Amino acid sequence: MTLMCAGLVDSGMPLHDTLGLSREAFEELSDHLYDNRYNSHEYRHLPSYRKSVEKGTVLIGETVIRGFPKIPRCLVLDEGIPQQFTTKIAVEEKLNGYNVRVARVDGDVLAFTRSGIVCPFTTHTVRSLLNVDRFFDRHPDQMLCGEMIGPENPYTTADCYDVDSIAFRAFDIRDRERGTPLPVMDRREACEAFGIPQAELFGVFEPAEAVDATPAIVRDLDSEGREGIIMQTLDGQQLLKYTTSAANQGDLAFAFTFPFDYGRDFSFRRLIREGFQSVEFDESAAERRDRAHSLGESLLMPMADSIETIESGERIGEQHTVRAEPRVIDALLEHFREQGLTIDIDADRPVEGDRLLTFRKRIQRTNDKVDAYLDGTIVRE
Amino acid sequence: MTLMCAGLVDSGMPLHDTLGLSREAFEELSDHLYDNRYNSHEYRHLPSYRKSVEKGTVLIGETVIRGFPKIPRCLVLDEGIPQQFTTKIAVEEKLNGYNVRVARVDGDVLAFTRSGIVCPFTTHTVRSLLNVDRFFDRHPDQMLCGEMIGPENPYTTADCYDVDSIAFRAFDIRDRERGTPLPVMDRREACEAFGIPQAELFGVFEPAEAVDATPAIVRDLDSEGREGIIMQTLDGQQLLKYTTSAANQGDLAFAFTFPFDYGRDFSFRRLIREGFQSVEFDESAAERRDRAHSLGESLLMPMADSIETIESGERIGEQHTVRAEPRVIDALLEHFREQGLTIDIDADRPVEGDRLLTFRKRIQRTNDKVDAYLDGTIVRE
Repeated sequence: MTLMCAGLVDSGMPLHDTLGLSREAFEELSDHLYDNRYNSHEYRHLPSYRKSVEKGTVLIGETVIRGFPKIPRCLVLDEGIPQQFTTKIAVEEKLNGYNVRVARVDGDVLAFTRSGIVCPFTTHTVRSLLNVDRFFDRHPDQMLCGEMIGPENPYTTADCYDVDSIAFRAFDIRDRERGTPLPVMDRREACEAFGIPQAELFGVFEPAEAVDATPAIVRDLDSEGREGIIMQTLDGQQLLKYTTSAANQGDLAFAFTFPFDYGRDFSFRRLIREGFQSVEFDESAAERRDRAHSLGESLLMPMADSIETIESGERIGEQHTVRAEPRVIDALLEHFREQGLTIDIDADRPVEGDRLLTFRKRIQRTNDKVDAYLDGTIVRE
Repeated sequence: MTLMCAGLVDSGMPLHDTLGLSREAFEELSDHLYDNRYNSHEYRHLPSYRKSVEKGTVLIGETVIRGFPKIPRCLVLDEGIPQQFTTKIAVEEKLNGYNVRVARVDGDVLAFTRSGIVCPFTTHTVRSLLNVDRFFDRHPDQMLCGEMIGPENPYTTADCYDVDSIAFRAFDIRDRERGTPLPVMDRREACEAFGIPQAELFGVFEPAEAVDATPAIVRDLDSEGREGIIMQTLDGQQLLKYTTSAANQGDLAFAFTFPFDYGRDFSFRRLIREGFQSVEFDESAAERRDRAHSLGESLLMPMADSIETIESGERIGEQHTVRAEPRVIDALLEHFREQGLTIDIDADRPVEGDRLLTFRKRIQRTNDKVDAYLDGTIVRE
């Protein structure tokens, strides 16, 4: 079956039109789609960016689930905000977890990760945490976009929220086919109506007010180790993000735990953000030195720890803990195997009918490279 | 005139044979050579690495001047040294300045930079500092390889030596056409004989002894802000380098003064070296934290300074000071102009018949990028 034959969506509109593509552009795109399956659902997804279609876009049965758009960032608030906005903006919290889109397809509520994969663990979790069926009865053509946060999840490790295991926070409701968002206040009311927890709203500001208000918001979030803010026009159409030093340095610490696996560009961008923030926040010499020290620690400490771990003969990997019914944990492990990941189990025990599993995703390059350099391999650079 | 026609060197051997290349490989190489001229000397040089011929190789008249080879590096001494060496090695200081090869061609002593350009300032300087004519009377087919160190030079800024203006330190004497080195002790005697100052020799060691001895040497150099060590077999054929934290962090501070002009790989490699050194030197928690703090300062402080400078409306650039006879300074400025560099003069005054010039080489990307981000330009990454 080719996608061109699958052809028509509910509205009778060809898929390529729904995606805003010519028939030819859609055919070109098809080469970059990956086939996948979740239970009875066969789907194709776009795991990386293409010109005009968002990363993570999914074609499932007759339905298109748009990828979540990449949100632009400013490096300075005081010029970035007025450059980007001329009308009132909502300032909400940007959460540190993983991005998920929830949609109901052929009667089943499914949770898609950023790259467009149905995650069995997340699908189970959102079904059990949220009144998803009532929500989709009312909003059948929407996707509910949010962040999964908390320490017990298979993808991220931030533990700065008052969440014991895992929780969902909505930050968008979008037309699943076109990607157009509900206006901010309508979205917040819709979530409120169905008891769906949301990212915090810090306020609605004129751009000039936001320039004054946001630095203090960012500093407060930073002091709690939280990630940052999302600013957007009230129609939800234009967005801008800005992150705390805690987020920048947390990312750097993660990257330098696996220095040969994480991009140099990834690290460089975060270093640059620290420089601009230090200048914009008008730090004293002592404050700047403190930031520098903490920045240095976020690079050297995890890197040296990883080198020492590998030197001692162990292998390093990304450790995560998840808690769910045994069948859900099984499905998650099977899902990772299908994706080609190698998982090592560090701990596995039953807790009140659930299974509490701590596992490591194996990474390759850092283990191999560090091993080689510790063995005296020379560098020709 | 094509190089193939220039054809024969003194020995009557075709150029491609001297370079160890087939006629075809030599023709391919010719496409990567740049034409240049110094006074009456026309020459061609290879400014970047090619497969089998060293970067910086020069074809001048009938003569080949080999590029100085890239020296491999180890990230840990205790495995790197025995991996690389099975016989006695000389351990000498690796100096922080700029690499220069001095050769006599058609009766003129010329100084070539790493990339193979005749630098008029350096040519003048080595002629006035060293007994070059006596040296080349005795060693006509050799090139004298060394580091130009000291605060007053047009390329580097390290000021960790007891040198007021500029000085030369020999670290190699090589056959200029074949690149083969004199044995270490012969080279040191030859320099001694002609009063040519040399890189310090810390000792000659069996590999196992060197593993024990080198960490203390590196620590001493580090405490003085010096760069590192070069280890080599006594025949000079096999070399290995290792650098201090001061050198790694100094390079990072330089790179983050111009963060958008200097490679991310350049920075990443130096961060990695710090991680391995911290582990190999078995640092206490407090020592590692100190290294981390100093590392963080080497990144953030120069970057924030540059952003603030650009924010204030100034342009940043690489500042250097040189001191020489007025005609030599003129020749240097003319040389930079020919290379397409834009030079801003910060200070220019006569001192005891010499001209003392402080200038800045303009850099573009960091100025432009920082300006744009300060103006609120958004980042889509």
